[in-house]
Amino acid sequence: MSRETDDLTDVLEVDEDLEDLALDDDYALNPEFVSDVADALDRGDTERLRELLSALHPADVADLMGFLSAGDREELIPHLDPETLAEILSELDSEIREDVLEHVPSATLAKAIGEMDSDDAADVVDDLEDDKRAEVMAAMPEQERAAIETTLAYGEETAGRLMQREFVAAPQFWTVGQAIDHFRKEADDLPELFFDIYVVDPSYKPVGAVPVSQLLRVGRQTPLAQIMEPVNEITVDLDQEEVAYIFDKYHLISAPVVDPGGRLVGQITVDDIVGVIQDESEEDILALAGVSDAGRDADIVGIIRSRLPWLLINLLTEALAVTVIGAFQAEIAKLVALAILMPIVSSLGGNAGTQALTVAVRAIASKELNAHNAMRIVGRELTVGLFNGTAVGLMLGIGTFLWWHDIRLSLCVGLAVVANLFVAALGGIVAPIVLDRLGRDPAVSSSVVVTFMTDFFGFLALLGIAALILL
Amino acid sequence: MSRETDDLTDVLEVDEDLEDLALDDDYALNPEFVSDVADALDRGDTERLRELLSALHPADVADLMGFLSAGDREELIPHLDPETLAEILSELDSEIREDVLEHVPSATLAKAIGEMDSDDAADVVDDLEDDKRAEVMAAMPEQERAAIETTLAYGEETAGRLMQREFVAAPQFWTVGQAIDHFRKEADDLPELFFDIYVVDPSYKPVGAVPVSQLLRVGRQTPLAQIMEPVNEITVDLDQEEVAYIFDKYHLISAPVVDPGGRLVGQITVDDIVGVIQDESEEDILALAGVSDAGRDADIVGIIRSRLPWLLINLLTEALAVTVIGAFQAEIAKLVALAILMPIVSSLGGNAGTQALTVAVRAIASKELNAHNAMRIVGRELTVGLFNGTAVGLMLGIGTFLWWHDIRLSLCVGLAVVANLFVAALGGIVAPIVLDRLGRDPAVSSSVVVTFMTDFFGFLALLGIAALILL
Repeated sequence: MSRETDDLTDVLEVDEDLEDLALDDDYALNPEFVSDVADALDRGDTERLRELLSALHPADVADLMGFLSAGDREELIPHLDPETLAEILSELDSEIREDVLEHVPSATLAKAIGEMDSDDAADVVDDLEDDKRAEVMAAMPEQERAAIETTLAYGEETAGRLMQREFVAAPQFWTVGQAIDHFRKEADDLPELFFDIYVVDPSYKPVGAVPVSQLLRVGRQTPLAQIMEPVNEITVDLDQEEVAYIFDKYHLISAPVVDPGGRLVGQITVDDIVGVIQDESEEDILALAGVSDAGRDADIVGIIRSRLPWLLINLLTEALAVTVIGAFQAEIAKLVALAILMPIVSSLGGNAGTQALTVAVRAIASKELNAHNAMRIVGRELTVGLFNGTAVGLMLGIGTFLWWHDIRLSLCVGLAVVANLFVAALGGIVAPIVLDRLGRDPAVSSSVVVTFMTDFFGFLALLGIAALILL
Repeated sequence: MSRETDDLTDVLEVDEDLEDLALDDDYALNPEFVSDVADALDRGDTERLRELLSALHPADVADLMGFLSAGDREELIPHLDPETLAEILSELDSEIREDVLEHVPSATLAKAIGEMDSDDAADVVDDLEDDKRAEVMAAMPEQERAAIETTLAYGEETAGRLMQREFVAAPQFWTVGQAIDHFRKEADDLPELFFDIYVVDPSYKPVGAVPVSQLLRVGRQTPLAQIMEPVNEITVDLDQEEVAYIFDKYHLISAPVVDPGGRLVGQITVDDIVGVIQDESEEDILALAGVSDAGRDADIVGIIRSRLPWLLINLLTEALAVTVIGAFQAEIAKLVALAILMPIVSSLGGNAGTQALTVAVRAIASKELNAHNAMRIVGRELTVGLFNGTAVGLMLGIGTFLWWHDIRLSLCVGLAVVANLFVAALGGIVAPIVLDRLGRDPAVSSSVVVTFMTDFFGFLALLGIAALILL
């Protein structure tokens, strides 16, 4: 606090110059910088290493860890001071963090965790292996340990886990001046950053919130109760996806978290929510592609485990779908053109089904599809399916005629496409709705259901129609 | 400002009771409430309508608009006062907004736009049709019109479009006390909410930022320059995806936007970024599924337009892929089992390719895949492809033997699966990397490339190996 203005400006400027070396124009780590760090590690050049690391924001150090090999990472850890370690631990991807945690002594870790917000601290402790966890917890002050245990008692992915126990509250009879004087006096006990002051009644229930900027705008005599705004309370057991929905919908910067009795116990801030939103859409993207999340730094076994089960399911459903082809072997032997057209019909169906189900899964996730408009949207999808089926069926029918000069074969394949794209639309919209009603995640299993439907029915439509009118 | 504390608490409680009727436990609109509104509209019951609407946050009114039919929506608009209209316009989905804008008189619109932050105002004006835009702009005060024109001059999806021109700046020689006194005096000119005060040098270049909560923590005599933190400057022409990356990485709440000369011209706040993050991952999800974004309220023509082109591309690539089958007609006629196994081999390849490419697309989007680790990740994918190929190939080979009792057919199909899953891994990882290097969006075209590869090669592998060793 005693530094002069000019000194501070110098420091900022030096940082910026070094940052230019480390980061590309797009704020991603420069691959050459990563190589420099790896080289310095290999040479054991501690001085150069410290110089390079000093240029980085903790978020960039965390990023750097992701690009280094496990061996390099291990060597880097001793060069991080406890404060930096505290800051980067909450930035690291989960797999890398587990790896890093193994290589940090328990005492250092206890100290680093003490510097974190309660939500980040609990996250880190949760990642520790049992032995280490006991050691680290034993090395922490009683109060911190209790706070972490309380947080970990809430279910995973709930508001209770997401919240920090550090927040700012004021009784409703205070004035703006009283609040500001109090904050100045108790500055050390305040959270590092805060955006809203929660106004509480005598039983510690939040009755309103005052954005911090509001305190700077009105006179010192103004009662807090006069400038406070209604709050969106969040209960400790609310799912994090719901919390993100509320933040997004009402453009919240922070929100109070209350226990089942309605008493204020913590707050959630928007920067935690940005992470949740990204995680949730990441989950959807991966689930739709049939991949479990293996994380960025998963080893090969982890990746195989995240994908092989889906391939085996695909093998099973596909084996089931091709039984239809088996039933029509005689027809195919008579007219091999059917074997050529068959994959086109099923592939078009698969594509159309994926389109419909992806849109439906997203609409369900953003609560834009509910009981009130479900029937309207199903109707819309079926209409689109019929239209697109007719358009594509016509094109394929014409192509088929130009190739084989057989109008009945053209008719078969055209009708099969129309029928299959109708089935695709039906499956694509109904499967996610039904799975959602059953309380399952529609992103996870809809693809399997719809792909099976369109393959099975695609084969059946083409071969069945051919058997009826062609052969 | 003259209301007593108790009165205000009453008001808040009444609002909460009504809100309970409107919103489900999960903060989504209650379908019954939507029906109530629709009924009141049908009956022309203005009083009931105002009562129902008064229970809603503007974000919920916007949500309601999405669930109403176009006709109901049109009837609802005259019941919204200009302030509410101003607040909901920035919340509405783009297609609904265009529809709503058509039905609001230009004078009302000009007034509503005047109440908005500059970024939201420009967004709305941008959505107006040419005639109406001219009318609305003419009805606005000179200064507002100029501000909107400046914003619209920035490219779409850039920081310039995203920023608001309302922000709070202070010269670096001010103390905390001077700043607070100034804010109190100029309260009316301040943005409604702000989170950081940008400290600027005499040429109006930002040299640091002070979080508002910091002002409440230190004494009035403290110079701003002493408590300011380094800032992440954003230039007006930066792409919004990059802006979101910076906000996410450094957990920013707000950031200063500078013109090419480095002078402060606006700020971006995190609530706008939450929207960008969701839009960007939405775009990726839809692109991977082969759907252009048609929006929630797109009409049937809009939906068809967003999907049919992808189906036609699928038709073309699939027609190309099945030429392989055409080349092996003789083999299929001899052994129809090949026609049955063929779709399984190509489907497994398609699945494995989609898995690899989805993971790669996400890694590229989050800058976790770059020149430094590309080769390592390609190697990892190929290993996974070989392993999963062997595992699934073995299973399918065994199944084939149990069904047809032909060890050579089993060998054919097993080898074909291994080969195709290797090709899938190669395509799945290389296609997005190459597309990204070429400056194309890897989410948009990778699927088409990879699906074609795995279909074409799946057929070729099975039928080719069969022709060589079986027939």
